[in-house]
Amino acid sequence: MPKLHLALLLATTLVFGVPGLSLAQLSPDATSRVVEIEVPAPALAGNLLGTSEMQDAAIYLPPSYDSDPDRRYPVIYLLHGIFDDYGIWLDIEEVPARLNRLMAAKAMPEALVVMPNAGNKYGGGYYRNSPISGNWADYIADDLIGHVDAEFRTLASADSRAVVGHSMGGYGAINLAINRPGTFSVVWSMSPCCLAATDDFGFGNDAWKRAARVETAEDIEKLLADQDFYAIALLGILSAFSSEAGDPPVHGDFPFDIVRGEVVLDDAAYDRYLDSLPTRQLRAARDDLRALRGFGLDVGLGDQFLHIPPGTIELSQRLGAERIPHLLDVYDGDHRQKVGDRLETVVLPWVGARLMVAE
Amino acid sequence: MPKLHLALLLATTLVFGVPGLSLAQLSPDATSRVVEIEVPAPALAGNLLGTSEMQDAAIYLPPSYDSDPDRRYPVIYLLHGIFDDYGIWLDIEEVPARLNRLMAAKAMPEALVVMPNAGNKYGGGYYRNSPISGNWADYIADDLIGHVDAEFRTLASADSRAVVGHSMGGYGAINLAINRPGTFSVVWSMSPCCLAATDDFGFGNDAWKRAARVETAEDIEKLLADQDFYAIALLGILSAFSSEAGDPPVHGDFPFDIVRGEVVLDDAAYDRYLDSLPTRQLRAARDDLRALRGFGLDVGLGDQFLHIPPGTIELSQRLGAERIPHLLDVYDGDHRQKVGDRLETVVLPWVGARLMVAE
Amino acid sequence: MPKLHLALLLATTLVFGVPGLSLAQLSPDATSRVVEIEVPAPALAGNLLGTSEMQDAAIYLPPSYDSDPDRRYPVIYLLHGIFDDYGIWLDIEEVPARLNRLMAAKAMPEALVVMPNAGNKYGGGYYRNSPISGNWADYIADDLIGHVDAEFRTLASADSRAVVGHSMGGYGAINLAINRPGTFSVVWSMSPCCLAATDDFGFGNDAWKRAARVETAEDIEKLLADQDFYAIALLGILSAFSSEAGDPPVHGDFPFDIVRGEVVLDDAAYDRYLDSLPTRQLRAARDDLRALRGFGLDVGLGDQFLHIPPGTIELSQRLGAERIPHLLDVYDGDHRQKVGDRLETVVLPWVGARLMVAE
Amino acid sequence: MPKLHLALLLATTLVFGVPGLSLAQLSPDATSRVVEIEVPAPALAGNLLGTSEMQDAAIYLPPSYDSDPDRRYPVIYLLHGIFDDYGIWLDIEEVPARLNRLMAAKAMPEALVVMPNAGNKYGGGYYRNSPISGNWADYIADDLIGHVDAEFRTLASADSRAVVGHSMGGYGAINLAINRPGTFSVVWSMSPCCLAATDDFGFGNDAWKRAARVETAEDIEKLLADQDFYAIALLGILSAFSSEAGDPPVHGDFPFDIVRGEVVLDDAAYDRYLDSLPTRQLRAARDDLRALRGFGLDVGLGDQFLHIPPGTIELSQRLGAERIPHLLDVYDGDHRQKVGDRLETVVLPWVGARLMVAE
Repeated sequence: MPKLHLALLLATTLVFGVPGLSLAQLSPDATSRVVEIEVPAPALAGNLLGTSEMQDAAIYLPPSYDSDPDRRYPVIYLLHGIFDDYGIWLDIEEVPARLNRLMAAKAMPEALVVMPNAGNKYGGGYYRNSPISGNWADYIADDLIGHVDAEFRTLASADSRAVVGHSMGGYGAINLAINRPGTFSVVWSMSPCCLAATDDFGFGNDAWKRAARVETAEDIEKLLADQDFYAIALLGILSAFSSEAGDPPVHGDFPFDIVRGEVVLDDAAYDRYLDSLPTRQLRAARDDLRALRGFGLDVGLGDQFLHIPPGTIELSQRLGAERIPHLLDVYDGDHRQKVGDRLETVVLPWVGARLMVAE
Repeated sequence: MPKLHLALLLATTLVFGVPGLSLAQLSPDATSRVVEIEVPAPALAGNLLGTSEMQDAAIYLPPSYDSDPDRRYPVIYLLHGIFDDYGIWLDIEEVPARLNRLMAAKAMPEALVVMPNAGNKYGGGYYRNSPISGNWADYIADDLIGHVDAEFRTLASADSRAVVGHSMGGYGAINLAINRPGTFSVVWSMSPCCLAATDDFGFGNDAWKRAARVETAEDIEKLLADQDFYAIALLGILSAFSSEAGDPPVHGDFPFDIVRGEVVLDDAAYDRYLDSLPTRQLRAARDDLRALRGFGLDVGLGDQFLHIPPGTIELSQRLGAERIPHLLDVYDGDHRQKVGDRLETVVLPWVGARLMVAE
Repeated sequence: MPKLHLALLLATTLVFGVPGLSLAQLSPDATSRVVEIEVPAPALAGNLLGTSEMQDAAIYLPPSYDSDPDRRYPVIYLLHGIFDDYGIWLDIEEVPARLNRLMAAKAMPEALVVMPNAGNKYGGGYYRNSPISGNWADYIADDLIGHVDAEFRTLASADSRAVVGHSMGGYGAINLAINRPGTFSVVWSMSPCCLAATDDFGFGNDAWKRAARVETAEDIEKLLADQDFYAIALLGILSAFSSEAGDPPVHGDFPFDIVRGEVVLDDAAYDRYLDSLPTRQLRAARDDLRALRGFGLDVGLGDQFLHIPPGTIELSQRLGAERIPHLLDVYDGDHRQKVGDRLETVVLPWVGARLMVAE
Repeated sequence: MPKLHLALLLATTLVFGVPGLSLAQLSPDATSRVVEIEVPAPALAGNLLGTSEMQDAAIYLPPSYDSDPDRRYPVIYLLHGIFDDYGIWLDIEEVPARLNRLMAAKAMPEALVVMPNAGNKYGGGYYRNSPISGNWADYIADDLIGHVDAEFRTLASADSRAVVGHSMGGYGAINLAINRPGTFSVVWSMSPCCLAATDDFGFGNDAWKRAARVETAEDIEKLLADQDFYAIALLGILSAFSSEAGDPPVHGDFPFDIVRGEVVLDDAAYDRYLDSLPTRQLRAARDDLRALRGFGLDVGLGDQFLHIPPGTIELSQRLGAERIPHLLDVYDGDHRQKVGDRLETVVLPWVGARLMVAE
């Protein structure tokens, strides 16, 4: 199956899997290093999208990891966005070099940083459990964390474990905080997608109609070949957010029908869809969220995905209504350009300061 | 110029100008009648869309109009939606027959009902003043009302004058109440479009990108030929909502640029755009709106134009915050199917009961 | 126990139980009549406020009730406000005369109108189930309706049964719709209290501190003797809204402590309190509320109880967010002056038109 | 006039003007020092509360101030809350020691910190311009800044000038940002009062009735003698927020009347009152606020002044709606206990990092 890079749309030049480039070379400091691992993913068993049950991840091991063999470290999980993989962190956002600088300056404690892959044919599973795209929340919370804690010298408790994500990964961080409580104690969500059904993520976006016209597997292949970003992403949303698997090829539960070219809501499916959004799940999760050591949100006002600023701000407003402590940082910027710089200057120091660094 | 009927989209079969059907025949009662008039429209002078400065309107004259030649009547102005004309009221919604029944049952007072045309190549001018599409608010408030009051036996004061509109016309009713105060004292807006920039009316709708790609007059003709409803309607919105006329062929002031396929906001233009929406104009108009004899809003929860229910409900919420009396009727229905029935059972009796019927 | 009239506060002159005035005299029409009944109230058994398990109600029997002995009628339940009883409907608001006029004009169908008493030492039980003030929701839905359906010729199904209430009774109507689904099919709430914890009904009102200082039964008697309206009403709120009975004399679960004269929230109790408010209960009840034949809300913008306008408008906004059809009528008026007139001109015709009048 | 300390209410033990304690002793570091100055306050001329036209302030001079005589420094203005004075910063919150630690650790740049007094008989003038309490905004922006820039080696431009305030001072920081644009470029508001008319700050608070019953100067003296905090504070609010001076002794423009013990709104005065609140002034000020180098807000969810958390969160939501960058930090804490610690760990480093430190 051809992989969809959407390079033009993402306005970035990603370089994956360059032959001859060893992972050691990715580490800009002699004492820290990045290792790539393969992680068995039983949580993805039975998914209907053909996603492999063996997943990749990269792990940054901090400078003292090799020289101080009895030390255990807190762990930060860093979740990528739609149609990305961990290459975004290594190659584009230069996370290892940033971590080296931060740790050298003691602006954050030494920690492992785990960068999983979480993609599929529609760009990703949104770090959610789904009978269609697989149980990606469980993959992170059970399979990946279990594997990392078994194979590396971690402080294996929630107090020493953080999750940070961007875009789809920002959504994922929040979803894990809500639906897998007790896994992470510090959460930061950068420019999170998919919090409220509005703007381009609402059903008013014409692209839903293109997604809804899919009837055959060939129709899906054509959308992929055309790189119709929104239509594909919405198929991914349907796959990840539906609670039951319906008929192929889409399997997902459309919350509306197209009747004579117009959107006609299916009330019951629409209810289920809305109820799956984080803005509607805070009340049930409030005790867990109040117990976090830190919960940060940020968003650039010029985000190209227009639902992201209002969705993030609405989440903050609802967190406030449920009396859940949190930080909201609304900045002048777009969806991507400041991500690396903000990781270094804002997010990682804030997260690091809140992690428990000793047992 | 070819007229765009969008018959499939509107899911109605409109019949305009059937040869041999005299207007008298449209009146199902011997004593009431409908006359068609032509109205000079100096307010539209200089519009850049080629809209005629002579406009049509139909007027329902109530049963006693001819037999009681000294009597003066209140007047209700009934504003149609996008890509419609007054035929929708006469042929589809059967307004004359409904008026006859209501007046016979004394469920509303005898009144003139004026049904103007307000279309242009993009479906209409939104009953707004614009240097591009012309001063449609002034056309209604000055040209048309002046003409009607001069030619017919009306009670020529705001206390005896109402405005009712549907969809684009529902927006128009509100816009006239806000921006032409002292013209109407009773306002009812059915399923009003364009109150808040959200969902299909927000910039998250992919269709904005198609509108933004227009560079030549031929591009516009192609959208019209393709009956690309949203792209055309958004060109109409731009024409009606821009406060200055820019470059041809679009003339309007896009609140964003398309950069590598993505929406990038233009802050100043976006501010102007948002500030032109009714939800943001209530504060300045609150004393005028509080002085109305009646202000009603309704919307069907299954409206195919997804921004209309939340926009209407948000307007009500903001009216409340400004302490402006109003009625909000949220019903189970869609954009069109109940319009005629609701006019007869809800809207016209409510409006009629609030009009002053004698000097 | 002395009855608290709060006549000054209510700015009305109530006349209860004037000797020598027979109930027949209350009926201004020879053919309709009002009967007073006593209703066993097992739902109130075990209440901790000393409220009687035998309650009074007045019932309006429509003009044809006696002359058409096989006919069955729809029933409207009319719920009074705090510190009132059914005398408010008979003596102040002149409901029987209004009903006579409406039925004579065929502006509403003939119907029984049941006016229960629902008071206690704190002004009332808010038509809620409570281990402290008794199960007033069950009293209405089970005891009273059961009694009326057994003793009178009613159409004994929800389709023919409406509830209308004012202030505390307006809250009661909504609470019954939410928590006793299937009982009523038409609901109208006039100037409902207690929908959202804001303004005078929020904990920012100094009066909560006076309520919180109660330590002995004598303290309560003193507040009653002083006619400290808000402090007493808040004790009534606590009694009605607490889910468990705590220590005497207040029994209720204060959602805050007073520490050095300041309000300090008790998070768990505050959560329970907020979760008991209708604005937070709509989601769970949405299918029931969508199935209603009619759901109306009204409020005067000059309501002396300052939480009532924003609470009512917020409820409408949340009904909209849950896609629940409803009518919101925001008018220029205060808490009481237009109640009788609006019952006749707006509420009862609207309610009557939606009731099923035959089996 | 006796000074009102409200020691119990504030739950702090303030020590002002201890004889024999020189200001040098307040400085815990040999090289930094605090000087007390007197500042002419022509902006307060003509105030009706007897507030002096000579005001005090304390200024922290950083460690290198004396040893590096050519250097100029950025300046942070630190605004106290109601019924406080700069003693709160020196004696209770230990600001000089915190500044010393931060500057020693290079966690913030060396800067002057100016701590003005801004009290009056009602607790303060809210850093607003008022014909009753005097032009306190102008006092800060013109008199005080002019004096400081003339007498000390400051970087005398907005880019190097910040304002930080707590409670009434938090309100003041926002009011200055909105109504005196171009004065400060970095703003942080801690637990700001008075942003939205809700809860204890709304008219639903019984205390408004006590304020409204004031008829004579003796009534005011009695409230002061009784230390009736809310009634006095509301007189202060009226004094500071009224745009015209009315009749003595209150002078302010009550937005309601008390009629038979109930609050009856005065629509026009209520409009003026609401329009004076920051949540309603953002739109007009948005270009100025967008141009800030930093705008931070924080609030503890357990704030004893119940309007402060929802008001702060609402301001953030409205800042977002106007696309104004800002930081919102919602934490687990109350109105006062974390103020000093947060100044050191969060606020001053954040503010310092955004100030321009060289010309």
